[in-house]
Order: sequence, then C-alpha cells, then structure tokens
Amino acid sequence: MRVAAIAGGTGAAKLLRGLAATVPQRALTVIGNTGDDAEVWGLHVSPDLDTVAYALAGRLDTARGWGLAGETFRCLEAMAGLGAETWFNLGDRDLATHIWRTHALREGVPLSVVTAELARRQGVAARILPMSDEPVRTRLRTPNGWLSFQEYFVREKALVEVFEVEYAGAGAARPAPGVVEAIGDADLVVVCPSNPVTSVGPVLAVPGVVEALATTRAHVVAVSPIVGGAAVSGPAGALMRARGLPVSPAGVATAYAPWLRTLVIDRQDDGCRPELGRLGVTAVIADILMTDRERELALARVVLRCTE
Amino acid sequence: MRVAAIAGGTGAAKLLRGLAATVPQRALTVIGNTGDDAEVWGLHVSPDLDTVAYALAGRLDTARGWGLAGETFRCLEAMAGLGAETWFNLGDRDLATHIWRTHALREGVPLSVVTAELARRQGVAARILPMSDEPVRTRLRTPNGWLSFQEYFVREKALVEVFEVEYAGAGAARPAPGVVEAIGDADLVVVCPSNPVTSVGPVLAVPGVVEALATTRAHVVAVSPIVGGAAVSGPAGALMRARGLPVSPAGVATAYAPWLRTLVIDRQDDGCRPELGRLGVTAVIADILMTDRERELALARVVLRCTE
Repeated sequence: MRVAAIAGGTGAAKLLRGLAATVPQRALTVIGNTGDDAEVWGLHVSPDLDTVAYALAGRLDTARGWGLAGETFRCLEAMAGLGAETWFNLGDRDLATHIWRTHALREGVPLSVVTAELARRQGVAARILPMSDEPVRTRLRTPNGWLSFQEYFVREKALVEVFEVEYAGAGAARPAPGVVEAIGDADLVVVCPSNPVTSVGPVLAVPGVVEALATTRAHVVAVSPIVGGAAVSGPAGALMRARGLPVSPAGVATAYAPWLRTLVIDRQDDGCRPELGRLGVTAVIADILMTDRERELALARVVLRCTE
Repeated sequence: MRVAAIAGGTGAAKLLRGLAATVPQRALTVIGNTGDDAEVWGLHVSPDLDTVAYALAGRLDTARGWGLAGETFRCLEAMAGLGAETWFNLGDRDLATHIWRTHALREGVPLSVVTAELARRQGVAARILPMSDEPVRTRLRTPNGWLSFQEYFVREKALVEVFEVEYAGAGAARPAPGVVEAIGDADLVVVCPSNPVTSVGPVLAVPGVVEALATTRAHVVAVSPIVGGAAVSGPAGALMRARGLPVSPAGVATAYAPWLRTLVIDRQDDGCRPELGRLGVTAVIADILMTDRERELALARVVLRCTE
C-alpha cells in the first residue's frame, strides 16, 4: 500500500512515526509544509520538514516536539553575546542541518533535492518532499502589522490577535517534483493532524495540489487536530477562527470538504457525526490523542484501515 | 603612542595581548591577514582576524592558540553525521562568529566593517582591520596540486612539500579603509612574530602596503618568528625555504629589509647581528619565546622601547 501524507510539524510527526512503524517506510511519501520556513541569521530553516525527518530518523526531541534529542545551545548563547536576535531556538546539532541546507540551496540545488538528500543522510527511508521548491510564506496580519509565521508563533508566542492569513508566493509556486504524482499514485492520502490554516493550508495553496486531491483514486483521510472544541496543541483554534471556520471537527471538514472522504475524530466528538455527514465526510471515531508510542501506532492502524 | 601591528594568528595574538596590556587598546590598530580565509560549509571563516579578536577579548583558547576557550563541537559532530567534510574544526560558539560574518557579507557589508563590528561586540577596544576588503587567497603548489592555505595547514597538517606560494587576487586588491593611514600615522609599526610567507606575506602583497611601510615616519619593528634556525610554531621554516629564504632571523630580515628598521631576535641568535647589520636592520636581543603572560608583557615592552 502506497501512502502519501500531508504534514505540518509536531502533530504530524507523531502520526508519521506510527505510520512508518506500520507500513514500510519506502511506501510512505510525506508532503511537508514550507510556509513556515524562515531565514535565521542568513540560514534557511525548514522547521516542519526537519521535524518530520528528525521524527522518522528517531532523532526528534519528543518532549519538546521539535529539534534534536539531547541538544545543546552554545552557538545560540554566543549569538546572544554578539547581540544577534535569538528568539528562534537553533540547537548546535540542529544547526548542522540548516548550514548544510543553506549551503546547498546557495549552490543552486532545489529544496526538494536538498530535503531528499538530508533525509537519506539521516537514514530515513521514507520520501520527504517539500510542497514546493518555490518559496511560499505564511504571513499573518496582526495589530502589530504583518508577521511571518515564526515571528507570530515563536517570537510572539501566538499571543497576538490574527485578522488575516495569507500564503505569499503561493500563486507563482508549483508543486515540487513528485508531489502531484505521490497524491495521484497513492492508495491512501493522509492529512495529518496539523493546523489546517498554517500547516495544511499552505500546501493546499500551491496550485495543483487541491486538483490532485480531488482527482486521486486514493482514499483521502484526515485526522482532526481539534478535540472537544480546542486544538490539541498550538494556535489552530485562533487561526481557524480568523479564517471564519468553527473550531471543531466540522470546521476541519469544512476546510477540506471538497476532496475529503473520511475524518478521524476523537470519541468525545461523536456528536459531530451528523454535521460531518452533511458535508459529505464520513466520521471515524478513535482515540486520537497520541500521548505515547502505543497510541501513535494505534491511531496509524485506524487510519490505514480507512481504505478497507 | 599610536601602534599599528601587522598580524597573523597564534604568535601575533600573544604579542598583541602583551601590547594591549601595555598601551591603551584604543591606540592599537591591528592589520590582519585574510590570505588564509576560507569558506567552510558556505560560511566565511577568517581565522587570523578571529584569533586576534578572541585574544584581545580574552576569549581565546590559549592552550590551542585558536578558537574559543571552553569550546564544544556538537555541530561539527552532527555535520560529520551528515557526511560533510569536517577536517576544519569549527566550534559551536566560534560558529556564531562565522554565521554572523557570513550573513553580513551576503548583505553587502564590507569585511572591514564586519570585522570592526564583531570586535566591538566582543568588547575589543583595539581597531582590527582586515588587510583588504577584497579576497586575497594564499595558495600553495604541492605534489597534490594547488592547495588553499587551510587545505595545506589543517587538512594536510603542513606535511606536504611546497614548491610555490601565490597570493591569488592580490593584484586587484586594495588595502582596506584605514590600513595605509594606520601605518602612516603610527609612531610604531610592529610586524608580529608571524609566518613571513603565509601570514605577513599576503598583507605585503596588497598593493600600497609596502609603499606605506617604506614611507611611514613610524619606527618599523619586527619580532622574529624564527629562533635557533626553526620556526617557533607552524610551517614557517618549510615555507621560507620554498621561497628561497634562509630559515633564520636573516631570512626574516631579507623578506622585510627594504622597510624594516629593527628586528627583535632571541638571545640564542645573537650571532646573526652582523648579517642583519649588512641588511640595514638593527638587531635587538630579547627572550622572544612567549611561553606565559609575563613573557608576552616583557616582549611587548621590548618592542615598545624600540622607538626610544
């Protein structure tokens, strides 16, 4: 069975780890969000691609949900000593990834090739694709003006109000080589439990991705990032509200309705079934909080069974 | 008293530390070698400028003679894990300097401005100038072909034969802003005990520097990097031989003769006096091995007394 997964960061990493333990990694293609990519000290950082690669390589700091396990921050401290901005936490070993990526990009290597090579060098057998080789950047209009996603999420700790979200550059972007094919050729497409607005939204904003999702012969399943009226983690609630979506499984289904067949929701959201039905989406009930490895695996099995 | 010093790395750092403890740092201008600058993983590394800045900031690893005290190498280890070349040892805190410099250079800031700013941010009151804002690169012809200085010195551990040395780019380079003025306005110009071929040589190869040294009203003093027929440290001996210079204080004096007034040599080289005299250079005898802080200070005082 070939699986294509659309993924953000932390939440996606857990489900992907479960999937990768259930199907052979080679059968798994991850289409990663690059809308929150950032340039930090002149280095190209791709937080979501790295979180996925680190998770599949068994290197992720699972307590924090980002970065490498056993990380140190000596370079960051020295940067602070030089008076540089240090609100974006780059660990010493994590820096190797960003330095390597930046160097390759400056030599003209496309992000998709860099990403595949970084995954391979970390021993990841799954295929990790950025949604696009062209820059697409999520920007949020707040009382302090337009912010990049990392300025909003890390620097401002997602505490400022968001009036509007845009995906700058999306109009001119093309899906990275392999993205449309992976969706078209898959038996199962999984939309990971990621923020629909700032993790999945940028992927969907790349022209051609929604068309691929609407026409694939694959079963398209999403796992809700919303449980009991609130996001499992991160600012998905506030951002869905900013986009006029209810903060509920129905809001998630609304965002994905034209092409989504199944939404896996938590037991406590059982009452949403009829509303999802009206949107043409079948609800599958499960324990969707992945609080440990066993639950990651269990949820992965639920998702894989959706094709049956 | 205004002092201008031409400096390489390790040996220069010791004398400069002594000078900076004897004259006010503000009176000291260091003209640093950039011939051994290197691009490592896409980062612009200026080993000699950094060694000088770290020494004057009290941050230098004095046991190794390069890099920062108390350094760690986690990023380097992660780079090795990614399969990158790791023969050039970049420490985690040292990396902050290179990332900061590279970012500024890519934004179009000249190296001289970047260098001054990095020194200021490390609390260094002395002025540190690169010899030139344009790239000049020392290259060495060996049985393995042309090598950069770092390939020769660090990767090959200076163990390969050198047939020829060139300073690529020197012809088109101009002295960085302030270099000619610092030499012209100084009361004392000190050529630090650095390798005449690969540390001082590149500085002298920048058009205008030798003219400034030949016409300055300052007393021009060098400290010999050669004691008893051998270099105090590093490959100066082999490189002087490759350039047809005897490995002796007389060889040093020959390289600097047209503009050098005084050469400070070690007690054990007292016999060189007459030969130096024939080259028009006055010998000053001292204990020139700077094995501790006291000796750095003592030698600095000897150098400063040369103007009397």
